[in-house]
Amino acid sequence: MSLYSEVFYSDEINELFSDEKSLSYLLLFESSLAKAQAEHGIVPNTSASIIASCSQADLIDLQALKKAIQLGGNVAIPLVKQLTQLVKNQDAEAAKFVHFGATSQDVVDTATVLQIKIFVEWLENQLNTLQEVLIKLTQEHRQTLMIGRTLLQQAKPITFGLKMALCLESIQRSAERLQSLKGELLVLQLAGAVGSQNQAINQKVKESLANILGLKATHSWHTHRDAFVHFAAVLGVLVGSIGKIAKDISLLMQTEVGEVFEGAGAGKGGSSTMPHKRNPVASAIILANAQRVPHLVATLMTAMAQEHERSAGLWHSEWEVLNDLMKLTAGTLERSIELLSGLEVDKNRMLQNLELTQGLIYAENVSLALAEKIGKSEAHKLVEKACKKAVEEQKHLKQILVENQNYLTETELQPLFQAENAIGLSLEIIENILSKYEL
Amino acid sequence: MSLYSEVFYSDEINELFSDEKSLSYLLLFESSLAKAQAEHGIVPNTSASIIASCSQADLIDLQALKKAIQLGGNVAIPLVKQLTQLVKNQDAEAAKFVHFGATSQDVVDTATVLQIKIFVEWLENQLNTLQEVLIKLTQEHRQTLMIGRTLLQQAKPITFGLKMALCLESIQRSAERLQSLKGELLVLQLAGAVGSQNQAINQKVKESLANILGLKATHSWHTHRDAFVHFAAVLGVLVGSIGKIAKDISLLMQTEVGEVFEGAGAGKGGSSTMPHKRNPVASAIILANAQRVPHLVATLMTAMAQEHERSAGLWHSEWEVLNDLMKLTAGTLERSIELLSGLEVDKNRMLQNLELTQGLIYAENVSLALAEKIGKSEAHKLVEKACKKAVEEQKHLKQILVENQNYLTETELQPLFQAENAIGLSLEIIENILSKYEL
Amino acid sequence: MSLYSEVFYSDEINELFSDEKSLSYLLLFESSLAKAQAEHGIVPNTSASIIASCSQADLIDLQALKKAIQLGGNVAIPLVKQLTQLVKNQDAEAAKFVHFGATSQDVVDTATVLQIKIFVEWLENQLNTLQEVLIKLTQEHRQTLMIGRTLLQQAKPITFGLKMALCLESIQRSAERLQSLKGELLVLQLAGAVGSQNQAINQKVKESLANILGLKATHSWHTHRDAFVHFAAVLGVLVGSIGKIAKDISLLMQTEVGEVFEGAGAGKGGSSTMPHKRNPVASAIILANAQRVPHLVATLMTAMAQEHERSAGLWHSEWEVLNDLMKLTAGTLERSIELLSGLEVDKNRMLQNLELTQGLIYAENVSLALAEKIGKSEAHKLVEKACKKAVEEQKHLKQILVENQNYLTETELQPLFQAENAIGLSLEIIENILSKYEL
Amino acid sequence: MSLYSEVFYSDEINELFSDEKSLSYLLLFESSLAKAQAEHGIVPNTSASIIASCSQADLIDLQALKKAIQLGGNVAIPLVKQLTQLVKNQDAEAAKFVHFGATSQDVVDTATVLQIKIFVEWLENQLNTLQEVLIKLTQEHRQTLMIGRTLLQQAKPITFGLKMALCLESIQRSAERLQSLKGELLVLQLAGAVGSQNQAINQKVKESLANILGLKATHSWHTHRDAFVHFAAVLGVLVGSIGKIAKDISLLMQTEVGEVFEGAGAGKGGSSTMPHKRNPVASAIILANAQRVPHLVATLMTAMAQEHERSAGLWHSEWEVLNDLMKLTAGTLERSIELLSGLEVDKNRMLQNLELTQGLIYAENVSLALAEKIGKSEAHKLVEKACKKAVEEQKHLKQILVENQNYLTETELQPLFQAENAIGLSLEIIENILSKYEL
Repeated sequence: MSLYSEVFYSDEINELFSDEKSLSYLLLFESSLAKAQAEHGIVPNTSASIIASCSQADLIDLQALKKAIQLGGNVAIPLVKQLTQLVKNQDAEAAKFVHFGATSQDVVDTATVLQIKIFVEWLENQLNTLQEVLIKLTQEHRQTLMIGRTLLQQAKPITFGLKMALCLESIQRSAERLQSLKGELLVLQLAGAVGSQNQAINQKVKESLANILGLKATHSWHTHRDAFVHFAAVLGVLVGSIGKIAKDISLLMQTEVGEVFEGAGAGKGGSSTMPHKRNPVASAIILANAQRVPHLVATLMTAMAQEHERSAGLWHSEWEVLNDLMKLTAGTLERSIELLSGLEVDKNRMLQNLELTQGLIYAENVSLALAEKIGKSEAHKLVEKACKKAVEEQKHLKQILVENQNYLTETELQPLFQAENAIGLSLEIIENILSKYEL
Repeated sequence: MSLYSEVFYSDEINELFSDEKSLSYLLLFESSLAKAQAEHGIVPNTSASIIASCSQADLIDLQALKKAIQLGGNVAIPLVKQLTQLVKNQDAEAAKFVHFGATSQDVVDTATVLQIKIFVEWLENQLNTLQEVLIKLTQEHRQTLMIGRTLLQQAKPITFGLKMALCLESIQRSAERLQSLKGELLVLQLAGAVGSQNQAINQKVKESLANILGLKATHSWHTHRDAFVHFAAVLGVLVGSIGKIAKDISLLMQTEVGEVFEGAGAGKGGSSTMPHKRNPVASAIILANAQRVPHLVATLMTAMAQEHERSAGLWHSEWEVLNDLMKLTAGTLERSIELLSGLEVDKNRMLQNLELTQGLIYAENVSLALAEKIGKSEAHKLVEKACKKAVEEQKHLKQILVENQNYLTETELQPLFQAENAIGLSLEIIENILSKYEL
Repeated sequence: MSLYSEVFYSDEINELFSDEKSLSYLLLFESSLAKAQAEHGIVPNTSASIIASCSQADLIDLQALKKAIQLGGNVAIPLVKQLTQLVKNQDAEAAKFVHFGATSQDVVDTATVLQIKIFVEWLENQLNTLQEVLIKLTQEHRQTLMIGRTLLQQAKPITFGLKMALCLESIQRSAERLQSLKGELLVLQLAGAVGSQNQAINQKVKESLANILGLKATHSWHTHRDAFVHFAAVLGVLVGSIGKIAKDISLLMQTEVGEVFEGAGAGKGGSSTMPHKRNPVASAIILANAQRVPHLVATLMTAMAQEHERSAGLWHSEWEVLNDLMKLTAGTLERSIELLSGLEVDKNRMLQNLELTQGLIYAENVSLALAEKIGKSEAHKLVEKACKKAVEEQKHLKQILVENQNYLTETELQPLFQAENAIGLSLEIIENILSKYEL
Repeated sequence: MSLYSEVFYSDEINELFSDEKSLSYLLLFESSLAKAQAEHGIVPNTSASIIASCSQADLIDLQALKKAIQLGGNVAIPLVKQLTQLVKNQDAEAAKFVHFGATSQDVVDTATVLQIKIFVEWLENQLNTLQEVLIKLTQEHRQTLMIGRTLLQQAKPITFGLKMALCLESIQRSAERLQSLKGELLVLQLAGAVGSQNQAINQKVKESLANILGLKATHSWHTHRDAFVHFAAVLGVLVGSIGKIAKDISLLMQTEVGEVFEGAGAGKGGSSTMPHKRNPVASAIILANAQRVPHLVATLMTAMAQEHERSAGLWHSEWEVLNDLMKLTAGTLERSIELLSGLEVDKNRMLQNLELTQGLIYAENVSLALAEKIGKSEAHKLVEKACKKAVEEQKHLKQILVENQNYLTETELQPLFQAENAIGLSLEIIENILSKYEL
């Protein structure tokens, strides 16, 4: 967090990872563990109740806790100590059952999974919204003609709807990936000191605790972090796909292109010293996040060779990074929804830009039509020559062709130079994509 | 490739990505495209046949091709040129239909997918083998007692079977991820210059071509690389999980630990000047690959913001990196199977190491047993004091306890210091994991 | 920042990058700019004074500022607006000269450089301290015999002093790199909207402002970030070198090795449930930081292709990352000084470990001595055989040799098995390294 | 290496890292070591001569060597074995002195440094050439007016010479960094099995060998890789700076911008199906390399925590990566020199683009001029209103101002709308930068 907490991030998700919230999920593990153990007679019910009543974030001395983390090396050790003391103040017997049979990593990992669970629910909503916005843009701009560009050069016409539809598909694939990894991701960590569990945390307790927390029971993944890293990568891919959208918008907003614009919030993107500018502010923020996120994924992926039954350092390196990754992903989602919801599309400028090359973008069209009359090779040569002439004389290619060949009449040439005739199967593809959604 | 082509890599997969093989997949796209177009009357059957007959890697001038790539910027442009000339030499008419309606990226991307398809099949086999090897180790060492270690410190006993079983689960998760992404990964790219397709590559042609090549038809993903990047990440996670295994083995092979060893191939891992050494050669190679692979994933993930309908540079950055990633993954798999197949486990040394702390690893056991007699807190204090005394006097903890307390008799203490009584639910967990496999 | 603000970081450097401090450096730029312009008659002296009096972090509405950053896309725009209003409240004329001729990036970049300057001074002190601690360890342990290890295998004896001395050299090289980059790093950014400067920020103003701020004047580096990235990399290399130290210590602290220990602060590294453990807590924290830092460097290095005269996103991606990099570096330094200052070395265990292989580590010694009598090749064979026998019979190599050959007598063999005779030039190297320091 | 060996790379530097060349540098180490040892009477002169005569890459069985690397884990072990056999075939006595006293890492690391040395010399030449090309562009285009762009928006005029001059400065800084790291980089590795050296490789031998090889003698850096990583980072920064140039050129080549073009080699960048396109082929290749290189740097930087006296895996991970890094850097340099040498600048299009906003880019100019008459605040409001009107009515801002205010006459307004009056200190900055070079 920094001066930029509002820019790169989402308030809601920042809040989810606040110190207080983080403590509350750690404590939720402890109270739920006692409850699960009580269900199976391992912990007395009264003890479990007392533990639950003490598992309140606001009872914890946060500053003392932070200082103490440095001694123990993780948050669980001093937290359990404080919690035990709180319980002991009420009932010495109950104090014996705090964190009973569990290990530090059990509580830290599970609390993280609980936060991930909330985050994923939030993210699913955002992804729905983002898809809705993209569907709307696709529908509205089905037939909005614009030039398609390859290697930053004008190539052939498409529609803006096609561009949006293909973006939509990429976001949908990310949404599906997220769905399909929930099974492996939202799992309990309850394995004890070396991953072998023990009678206090036996299979039954584990199942009960998993039920209470809404997670799946599984075996120790203390040093098998593949599900976390896969989750991180899926977020990274999602952010990358959104980054692609922001990249295109930032390029389309260029003064020389001017085809789309970020919505003008009050003063948004304006430059005090340059009143004509309309900066791609949201796009820049998204691109900044998309620039950072893959490196957080890489941090986690390079930390997988965790030693033995608990790592000395690699586990520790995950803590802040995984949270930052979710926080930046959240900010990216929010900014992208804002960006696309308010997107302004300048159809006229798109049409003007289609004319920038004076017909050259239709050269292949002409070549194909000519080929039917004089063969592919001759046609190619003729058109190449005409293009050269058009450039040299700064004339429209159609005019050059009218003046310099007789195989195709002006009437025949005319439709070859109309963008709507040059968009291939754009409309068909769009319908195909939209048809997957109940609209 | 380099001096180290045998070390970090797999011969078989190196071969799959050789220049010749790469050409053959590019050409397979071209011949199959013509065939698909012939099915729908877009290309004459005879032309399609001639194109097929010319689509042979050994007809291509490889050196000229490589030089020409620099001009066009990708391999498709000069390849199509050479192919067209070959076809033209046989039939001028047929030459018109080479690469008909397609764009460079269509052939380059699809050829890559075809190679990925072969690679994934190979990988599935390797993953099966790797899982079999891990199952065997798990079965054999169900009850092989060893110390579990956290933060590189001896913690509590587990069995080597438990360690292997948890590794097995991580590999299985990777195998499942690989399965579930095949649908999104093994897709045709056939979208034309700007992703809008055209009549020469309409939906029917696309379906036919997809059928011929054993891929799924979909829409343009020219600048939506999420499926590639997700695939890369899944490989990265797999290599990371194997890296964790290699890390543990390298640590267990330490002279001071000496619990497992890489199988001794002729001269393998030996040091000419230090005859006693048994170097973790295969582990080191795997760890080296696991060190490199995540950065290749990151390269691809940072290249996702591809501009408009084809990127100027980001697409190009994928070509070698994606291949290298698969090649290093392949080498990692091969080395790990060799390593684990030949793994030697020194059960005696494991037992000796369990005694290294002179009973201190059983302190918690004693504490729990004592707690039933004198309460948790008193028990903890008594054991803590005994541990301190044991360390100072360099005596076994059991002896200290026998001499210094009367709550537990020597007969009662004895089982508390036996590793087999301290492995928690190790055996249950192992059975649970093995039960998922038909054995 | 998070629950872990005390663990991975340094309080002092966290404070340097707090919101308040960050604001104060931004405002210092603005007040100093007006002052420099006043020196050259570009801004009235009274206006400059009023601007200075308003440039106080506590006059700024931080929450409003944070909200507004999202509109403008960077902190400078709303900050200059607030500052201008504060000045205007006092004097409308002076308000005209706030941020006169400068651009947002001028103030943001320069404020960052000012923070870097403080950070670098702090770091130099820490590096001196770290070097002193390493010198002390080198001196104390010049002759502390221990085994050298390659590929995690015992190889040949060294001294702990040699290990420390080589670490010292690596830290010294980092200190030198830091010195040599200050010239390119501590430079003013004052270039105006597109890097071309203007009369309000001409060369003279620039020189004056550079003087006031203690920086060097140079030309625009708005989109040439090489000095920042090089600085980041030099920090990354430093953290990597410290990571190597922590890695070795964590390995030497293994229960099975037990040669060094982190100093035992109150409760530090202790495990509540496993009283015998002595966790490498500080080492783990350092290793965690060393795991993260290179990816922050990579984030910055992949953000270098900044478009035209100001980037849309890549510049933005630097802001938090560069700060985080310095903050993690600071924490790494503090933890490493604590770790090494309190390091406990168990010389006896080191000697015991030298005997673990029962003389095998001296095999090459014997081989060399034998070679003088029977030739290298024969010697090698004989020793190889003896080693094998020693391992099989679990006897000491010396004993095997005494019993099985006559070329070397027991008296001649004895010194070949003493560690102090097998440390090569360790002592000479140590003296050589220490001689570079005035001690 | 791959199909793309000509595209992303330099033939010359590919050759430097070929298997044969790599072998020759490894063998050069061995022959030079024997020679250095002969100088000090440690090896007989005749033996040294025989070793030298056998140290020929073409005497080595490369395929056998590659296979054998897998057993030993590095190239040195089987190479020394083959070399020893070759020597032995000539003289059994001499065979004793092959690789005498050295360790595998000594020869592998030093051979790499010898290749780096050649590479750095090559690179210095290339950097000189690149700087010359940039100087020429700066000189030629001192006064070539163009628009400066921030956040991809037109901002204010600069000259193309200023853009080139600032790029030149960034390349020069890289050249200086390269110079200043040669001292730490071009050092001998000769430290023996555990870094402690021994009598066969004492200080005198080391000095002699360093002399023979043109390197500096130093102590073991077997597991202190900071100089390599720093070197890698400096290359990464250089490639990043070149990437920035390629990024700008690719953007300036956009159809809608059209201000510069890659030189048209025969067929270069042309699209067979789209005759009007002029693809940024070289720029794309450079951008691809700039995309990959930072991740290679990160690979090396994350591999710094090398264990004890030789790492099990991290060292191994450097081998190919460091070479690839140099090879990609070399390709980047070659492509950038080709690109900039042939760069075509369309001054007319630049002038046209300056008019795209119909005077809006001069709004601040007008505002400053007006401020002198009616105060900053009033001026700002008036101009803001005029800009809005100009946009709405699609008229030139100057015309709107002529029609709607009386503070400035048309004659006074005229120069405010001339680009040459709006380039700030561009020319002064250019002269300042060029003055550092002897021209």
